[in-house]
This record gives sequence, C-alpha cells and structure tokens, in this order.
Amino acid sequence: MRHIITATVEDASGVLNRITGLLARRSFNIESITVGKTTEEGISKMTFVVDLDSANSAEQLIKQLNKQIHVLKVNDITHQDIVARELALIKVKTSKSSRAEIQSLIEPFRTRILDVARNSITIEVTGGLSKVDALINLVKPFGIIEVSRTGLTAFVRDTSSK
Amino acid sequence: MRHIITATVEDASGVLNRITGLLARRSFNIESITVGKTTEEGISKMTFVVDLDSANSAEQLIKQLNKQIHVLKVNDITHQDIVARELALIKVKTSKSSRAEIQSLIEPFRTRILDVARNSITIEVTGGLSKVDALINLVKPFGIIEVSRTGLTAFVRDTSSK
Repeated sequence: MRHIITATVEDASGVLNRITGLLARRSFNIESITVGKTTEEGISKMTFVVDLDSANSAEQLIKQLNKQIHVLKVNDITHQDIVARELALIKVKTSKSSRAEIQSLIEPFRTRILDVARNSITIEVTGGLSKVDALINLVKPFGIIEVSRTGLTAFVRDTSSK
Repeated sequence: MRHIITATVEDASGVLNRITGLLARRSFNIESITVGKTTEEGISKMTFVVDLDSANSAEQLIKQLNKQIHVLKVNDITHQDIVARELALIKVKTSKSSRAEIQSLIEPFRTRILDVARNSITIEVTGGLSKVDALINLVKPFGIIEVSRTGLTAFVRDTSSK
C-alpha cells in the first residue's frame, strides 16, 4: 500500500542520506521524494511516498526514522485528511495541426503552457498523482519528448470547522 | 554557486541512497531534491539543486555520479536554457478581515486556493525559486502555519527555432 510520510529535519550534511539508507536497507521502494526549505532557518521538510506491505512495517519505519539524528518529527499522514499535490512538466511534440487540438484537450486540467517551440510545447500541471497520470496518458499519443515530475508534497488539512 | 543537476536512473533499491551518499561524503549541501517517474517503465528522473564552490567540483561530481550503478545519465543544466519550476503549499492564518486582503495580495502570483478553513487558507503556487520565496515573504506578516515545497524540477528548453 502506498504511504505518504512527512519528515521535518535539520539541514545537516548526511541527513537525507541516512533516511534513504534506512529505506534502502529495508528494501522499501521509494516512489517519490521531495525536499524543500521551510520558513524556519535551517529546517527542511521532506515528503516521501513509499510502497509498504503492512501497517506494521509503516509503524516500524516511522519509529526508526524518528530515532535518526537531525530528524525532528516524522508522520505517516496516509490516513489523514490531507492536501497532496505534485507538479509535472511535460514536453509534447506538436505540428501545425496538432497544437490547437492539444491545447483544447488539456484545457479542463487547468494547465499552463510554459513554452512553445516550433515542434513542441511545454505544459505545467499540478494535482494529485492520478490527475497528473491522466494528463500524461491523454497527450501520450501525440508523442512525449520529456516528463519531469516533482513527486508529492503534502500536509494535513486544516479541519477547524469550515 | 547553485547548480541544477538532473539524473535519469533505473528504479532500483538503493540508487537514491548511493547518490545522496556520494553528495554527503563530499559535504555538498543539497538544497532540494525531487524524484518522479518518467513515461518509461522502471525509469525515474531526479532533479537536485546543490551548492557547489567551483566549476571544477561540479565537473567532478557529474563524473562520479555517472559512474554509479543504475544511473543512466547525469547532466549539469545550470548554464543551459531551462524550464525550472517548483510547487509550494502554504497554509496562512486568516481572520474574517484578512482573508480578502490576502486573496487580493496574492492574485498577481497566479496562485490557487486549495482549501479554506475558518482560520486559515491553503495556497498553491508554482514558479521558480525566487517567485515562491517572494510569495512566502508577502504572506508572512499574516502568520504562516505551514509551508511544504517540492523543490525544483527542470529540463532543457526546446530551442528549435520558435
């Protein structure tokens, strides 16, 4: 089952390496990982998506990650009410005739066209994994030159009564 | 100097760990790292932003990364014409009076409001590092509850005569 885990860490040389090492030793498959700065100096936040075979191994993993030096807080937010999004850049082949067709096809996805060249366009899309997958499949028949995805970043939704 | 490096890798247990290990051993500071699937089965693409002190160490690093098992191709695209974007989720404190003010303030950034709760809103923004930094600084006075950034993903722009 796919788990979404967030970790708050100190910016210290090797902290990312210790985390990926722990996952590699246990042969967990990391589907994606994102790391970015927070608003606190010297503190970064990671979101990783891992495929785990049981709830038990998820619990074990969180425990072990929490024990690592420079790791401040680790949470498995899979079963919580979360906001989870990724960004993908997609470079698609175009011809004079297909450009307008592609643009109308992708319109419902609220994409942005970042670049138009003679034989290609570069599309930016954000959303959950399935939305990004759907868009990629939609434009695949035109010929995808390159795809670059960030992987998910996520946090728990604010549930203060709306 | 900040370098943007992309790596195409096979999905094998430990490949991310070997790459982060190589960077940690040389004490390079990884500012961000993103890893996502490509359209090719079993192949992922990473983008990392590292702070390197000279062009020489960048060259050395690329050479060493290219030698790793399961690493197919590594490029330093810092000095090329690239499309580079990241996604950030920002949860900002709101009150009855500040919500409209925040929304009009962030409007020029082409953000999306992903969630509205009684005491907060969650904003999605995409762009280069400086745009995302600028937006975060803009809403900071209202009180930031949480920030989650993916880090940059990037590829080389299509320069076929536009």
